[in-house]
Amino acid sequence: MKDIKVNQDLIRERKKCSFNVEELIHLIDGGEQNTLERKEIEEYILSNKDLRDVVPEEYLSHKERYENAVRKACILYSLLLRRSMERSPSPDFRISNNYKITTGVIKDISPFLLHFVMFLPTIVSQASSEQQLEWLQKAPQMIGTYAQTELGHGTFLRGLETTATYDPDTEEFIIHSPTLTSYKWWPGGLAQTANHCIIMAQLHIKGKNHGIHPFLVQIRDMETHMPMPGIKVGEIGPKLGFQTANNGFLGFDNYRIPRTNMLMKNSQVLKDGTYVKAKNNKLTYGTMVYIRVTILTDVAYELSKAVTIAVRYAAVRHQSQLKPGEPEPQILDYVTQQHKLFISIATSHAFRTVGLWLWNTYNQVVADMGKGNMDQLPELHALACCLKAVCSRDATACVEQCRFACGGHGYMVSSNLPTIYGIVTATVTYEGEYTVMLLQTARYLVKAYKQTTEGKLLTPTVSYLAKFLKNSKITWENTPKGIIESFQAVAAGKTKEACESLFQHMNSGKAYEDAWNLASVQLVNASEAHARAVLCEMFWKETQRLSSSVSNDLASVLEQLAELYLKYWALEKRGDMLMYSAISKKDVATLQKRYEELLALIRPNAVGLVDGFDIRDEILCSTLGAYDGRVYERLMEQAMKSPLNSEPVNQSFHKYIKPLLAKAKI
Amino acid sequence: MKDIKVNQDLIRERKKCSFNVEELIHLIDGGEQNTLERKEIEEYILSNKDLRDVVPEEYLSHKERYENAVRKACILYSLLLRRSMERSPSPDFRISNNYKITTGVIKDISPFLLHFVMFLPTIVSQASSEQQLEWLQKAPQMIGTYAQTELGHGTFLRGLETTATYDPDTEEFIIHSPTLTSYKWWPGGLAQTANHCIIMAQLHIKGKNHGIHPFLVQIRDMETHMPMPGIKVGEIGPKLGFQTANNGFLGFDNYRIPRTNMLMKNSQVLKDGTYVKAKNNKLTYGTMVYIRVTILTDVAYELSKAVTIAVRYAAVRHQSQLKPGEPEPQILDYVTQQHKLFISIATSHAFRTVGLWLWNTYNQVVADMGKGNMDQLPELHALACCLKAVCSRDATACVEQCRFACGGHGYMVSSNLPTIYGIVTATVTYEGEYTVMLLQTARYLVKAYKQTTEGKLLTPTVSYLAKFLKNSKITWENTPKGIIESFQAVAAGKTKEACESLFQHMNSGKAYEDAWNLASVQLVNASEAHARAVLCEMFWKETQRLSSSVSNDLASVLEQLAELYLKYWALEKRGDMLMYSAISKKDVATLQKRYEELLALIRPNAVGLVDGFDIRDEILCSTLGAYDGRVYERLMEQAMKSPLNSEPVNQSFHKYIKPLLAKAKI
Repeated sequence: MKDIKVNQDLIRERKKCSFNVEELIHLIDGGEQNTLERKEIEEYILSNKDLRDVVPEEYLSHKERYENAVRKACILYSLLLRRSMERSPSPDFRISNNYKITTGVIKDISPFLLHFVMFLPTIVSQASSEQQLEWLQKAPQMIGTYAQTELGHGTFLRGLETTATYDPDTEEFIIHSPTLTSYKWWPGGLAQTANHCIIMAQLHIKGKNHGIHPFLVQIRDMETHMPMPGIKVGEIGPKLGFQTANNGFLGFDNYRIPRTNMLMKNSQVLKDGTYVKAKNNKLTYGTMVYIRVTILTDVAYELSKAVTIAVRYAAVRHQSQLKPGEPEPQILDYVTQQHKLFISIATSHAFRTVGLWLWNTYNQVVADMGKGNMDQLPELHALACCLKAVCSRDATACVEQCRFACGGHGYMVSSNLPTIYGIVTATVTYEGEYTVMLLQTARYLVKAYKQTTEGKLLTPTVSYLAKFLKNSKITWENTPKGIIESFQAVAAGKTKEACESLFQHMNSGKAYEDAWNLASVQLVNASEAHARAVLCEMFWKETQRLSSSVSNDLASVLEQLAELYLKYWALEKRGDMLMYSAISKKDVATLQKRYEELLALIRPNAVGLVDGFDIRDEILCSTLGAYDGRVYERLMEQAMKSPLNSEPVNQSFHKYIKPLLAKAKI
Repeated sequence: MKDIKVNQDLIRERKKCSFNVEELIHLIDGGEQNTLERKEIEEYILSNKDLRDVVPEEYLSHKERYENAVRKACILYSLLLRRSMERSPSPDFRISNNYKITTGVIKDISPFLLHFVMFLPTIVSQASSEQQLEWLQKAPQMIGTYAQTELGHGTFLRGLETTATYDPDTEEFIIHSPTLTSYKWWPGGLAQTANHCIIMAQLHIKGKNHGIHPFLVQIRDMETHMPMPGIKVGEIGPKLGFQTANNGFLGFDNYRIPRTNMLMKNSQVLKDGTYVKAKNNKLTYGTMVYIRVTILTDVAYELSKAVTIAVRYAAVRHQSQLKPGEPEPQILDYVTQQHKLFISIATSHAFRTVGLWLWNTYNQVVADMGKGNMDQLPELHALACCLKAVCSRDATACVEQCRFACGGHGYMVSSNLPTIYGIVTATVTYEGEYTVMLLQTARYLVKAYKQTTEGKLLTPTVSYLAKFLKNSKITWENTPKGIIESFQAVAAGKTKEACESLFQHMNSGKAYEDAWNLASVQLVNASEAHARAVLCEMFWKETQRLSSSVSNDLASVLEQLAELYLKYWALEKRGDMLMYSAISKKDVATLQKRYEELLALIRPNAVGLVDGFDIRDEILCSTLGAYDGRVYERLMEQAMKSPLNSEPVNQSFHKYIKPLLAKAKI
């Protein structure tokens, strides 16, 4: 990178940086060895010239974009195959790294994504050992996806309509879509790409419905790729983002599959149609929790891309005047711009840090589950739900803020901010809709509240409830600890109010479910407050822990970011703070002052901090955010690739405009 | 509409409605006569079959989309021409109605938009009467646009780099782009469509820079449409939205135009190069203010589309269970859903209502200016800036909320919510960036604050400052008036704090400009609070006024919406309320209770209220929001139009996937 001509402002900014950027890169990668491995893989993949687009894909038709994405995805997986990525030592690191490279190569979502993140993991977690042995051997010939959601049902799994009726005579399941709304709808890669699919369907045996179960279904011929008879499959059409994900629909007309195609690690159907129930139906929660946990680190990564673009552009862009007669300043020198952007740097670190902590918690819970101990699963589930909801929503808001901070140019596809927005905002809805997720956690909070009033012990992540419900008058302390406790007081106060509202509605004669609905706005608020308390506490604690293992220079910058995050949210939520914590109006003014000091402290390190995310230009895909800061040259170069610019006069002039003007003349 | 099969839920909802929907439609149109005229024009245009797309345009390539948009725009204007729309009695109504039909026909932004909303109005407002006479006669042959923004400059007009140097020998201006960053960048229709352009350039005469002035420039040959020699013109590439707007760039290589092509209503350049300065340079503010005013009603209209889609879909969609064993309820029955959506109905009414009030204020100020009285211009400017900022931002958030409320299906382009988002979110940036706008208003607030401390009289819209700065302890009153006064108290409190912060920084030795920058986060907050106070006050007052002229049934519904708007924002801003008004924590709980009552009151009228926006299906362009509620059928029908679905196997299988699988086999 060092031999290219770099914008003078960026050179100056990089000289100002008070910490060692390499050290931050290693920290984010989880160690120097990981950084080296990542860089080596990136170089191996991204130096392949066939992966580069001749015409940027935003100029292509919907169909051409899909075909180009398949082309690149095939090259990518062929390269990874050749390198035997499968044997890489750290699978978690490998998956996340694969994701990063894929977004760089495809620039959007790969049509093969669900094969890797849903199809194979579901086989591993829900197929029996014999099935795994057989299917994983066949896996290199299968392109799979995972079909749960239907046209008429997303959130409410029990409402799914696709049926799998067991026929003991032939030892087959008859898969059927009884209605239009029962068509599978949304799975990535399902439309034109996959030849296999795991579907969720209502299991019917001898007239009895045993609920939804997973089945492996072949949907296309392995040789011709034609849809199998009885299968209706196609794509659902363009979306806000995920343009190349090839999301599809799938309908079944009494389609028969062998009995052994039901995934039988948990529940089973014997030859004679005997249904053997799973020992523990909580086991299937595992995958859902897993995906929600990874969403935290995914959005942290996408946000790091957005803020890298916005901060570098803000360092290069000069506009307006601070003082008459002086040159136009870098827009990064406007305090309002710092206010818009630095929280996104901090938020990316927060979500990555808390995401890793949640990931470790998840692995520990899974290990315990392996030993038959399910005690921690409800707590983990409650935690994953509210964190998934709040992190996805906050990340969306941050990405949008980064885009707004780039003015008009941020609205251009070539900035890559619209695509990042499309990817991030989808996480608010998929794998558990925002409000539904918060209400899931609210159930846990209500239970905890009841336990508190009954004097019972609480699980660790909600134990603060007992403290603050007993003694709400804890004094304000202007420290990170004080802010964290205030957030806990807010969550406790909101939980109490929501519960009281729920019980009042019940006491006035409403059924529990109606009372729940009537109190749901408050329940959602309580759940969101709980997530904020957890985010603030764990980000701060984990930062403290990490700081002890890095240089003082870096430690102080990391602590500034964590403090900024706490102060920012304390100010954003000052109303809640004033209502439920011991903070006073005067204290709020003190917070505001310190917040503005933090902006000034972070300012000289802003470019260094986004350099620390170390995102290669090929992955960033941005005219505004490239390492060299050649913003205006890139904007023009990218525009000149438009097919509309390849001819001086577009045919529509002769076909439509000229005749119109001729008519107007008369 | 009545002979089509309508979803049963929607039929039930429509029966429940407590007011006459026709009456609401007339109110929104500004009278029954306007409704009739609108419906008649809509029928005239939309019944034209050539305007319908065979392939939905989201499947086309970028270039094909442009060509299709030109095709339709030409048919549209040909139809309007034939009907002599120009002679319609009410020009304001005509323009807004044109906009509505255009968005329906083009489904996005017309490449001719700027001809009508910027090019012609600028000629009318800034060309001399002789120029107008000449140019408006030629107008039917001209396709014009307006080029101000450059690649390197948007916000800061004085920083524009394009030069217009007067050559007295030939009596010409030499238009030149000295740098890459001086290229014009963004104007709609500029790329391949326009043959004329009004450009803003720095006027140089005899080595002296007289600042920016407007010039009429021919950029393409009238017969061949080829770019004129010395003109470099093209398109800037795809964006988040505005896909068919044909935004372009424009560079000049010492391009000569006659002296008489400078727009000379205000400033003039005489033959010998003598510069005659405009009597009042505030006159050019007019157009900017005008555009900002219309943004309020534009976003109100776009939001009415978004919430129509989301409410109808929420009435049709059934999901989950409120009670075990009972059928799945309409999602509109979830209080959290009502909380998400009803504020958008209220907000659309708020912005339309306040927009009309601002429009009337604008016309009155312009009339006064005609008589030489400029006194009210600064106040109007301050008002338009903060309202433009807050309304554009709020509308964006509301549209996004509507989209989230539609779950996964809201993410589909066929819902039309992504396109509406693209159109609305652009308003946050164009015609005055959000933060810059709020800081403009902040300057006015700081001035007003100083005047108060000096005991001077304030202009009407900020006069509350004096009241609340003198006596901040006004008691809380749980009425709309009480809430409005609380918002004023918040704005006054924030203005005071921001000013004190500004002065403190100055007293500590900072230059005014540096102090301004340091206080700018607080200044922005004060300005936003001022806008909220104005919005709440004027929406409530105008609703009271309108209510007296309609039936009691409708009046009570309108008042519910206005009250909901006030309560919603009081709760959203409870932190500010607690800090700056006399409200107590207990009062907040009372507000919350009443807010939830209002949701329940509005619930039975929700579908009636969105029917009241009366947006034809062809303009709504939504699979989820059509009048008949055939949501799932439309989703599938639209998907089946995908070219990817017209063949059972896509060529990419044979070209890329099959060889990849073959490799994996070995």
